[in-house]
Amino acid sequence: MPVIVVEVMPKAELLDPAGKAVAGALARLGSTPFTDVRIGKRFELTVDGLADEAALSAARELADSLLSNSVIEDVVSVRVADE
Amino acid sequence: MPVIVVEVMPKAELLDPAGKAVAGALARLGSTPFTDVRIGKRFELTVDGLADEAALSAARELADSLLSNSVIEDVVSVRVADE
Repeated sequence: MPVIVVEVMPKAELLDPAGKAVAGALARLGSTPFTDVRIGKRFELTVDGLADEAALSAARELADSLLSNSVIEDVVSVRVADE
Repeated sequence: MPVIVVEVMPKAELLDPAGKAVAGALARLGSTPFTDVRIGKRFELTVDGLADEAALSAARELADSLLSNSVIEDVVSVRVADE
């Protein structure tokens, strides 16, 4: 069955302590090309039927209402997963 | 600065109780086109310099060693983010 992927990240102006902890650990572990780490969520919604515009629209609504907290998070992507 | 996105999902054979809870809530809320929900993680690594093959290779190594637990999770994607 097709899968729709919803990606949610903490807003840029928020601190994201878990991401900061990973970035700090990387720096302590030695040379790293990465200066910052942010951690968000990735949802896979299995669609019963076709991943058409109606399903995508339902996924977008769900992403804004249930899967993310718009005070602290942004929905960065809602798309049909590659098979 | 360029960003590399690492996506990690719970393995298919694992139960993922948080995802099951969301799927159950959707079913209780009424008609939904979605039969299953799985919840994983999305990391954004900010690269100091170019997002070249060396940076991607460092990100892949990091994804396997630190950002995921290979017993329960799969790294599903390591890619340069679209601007």
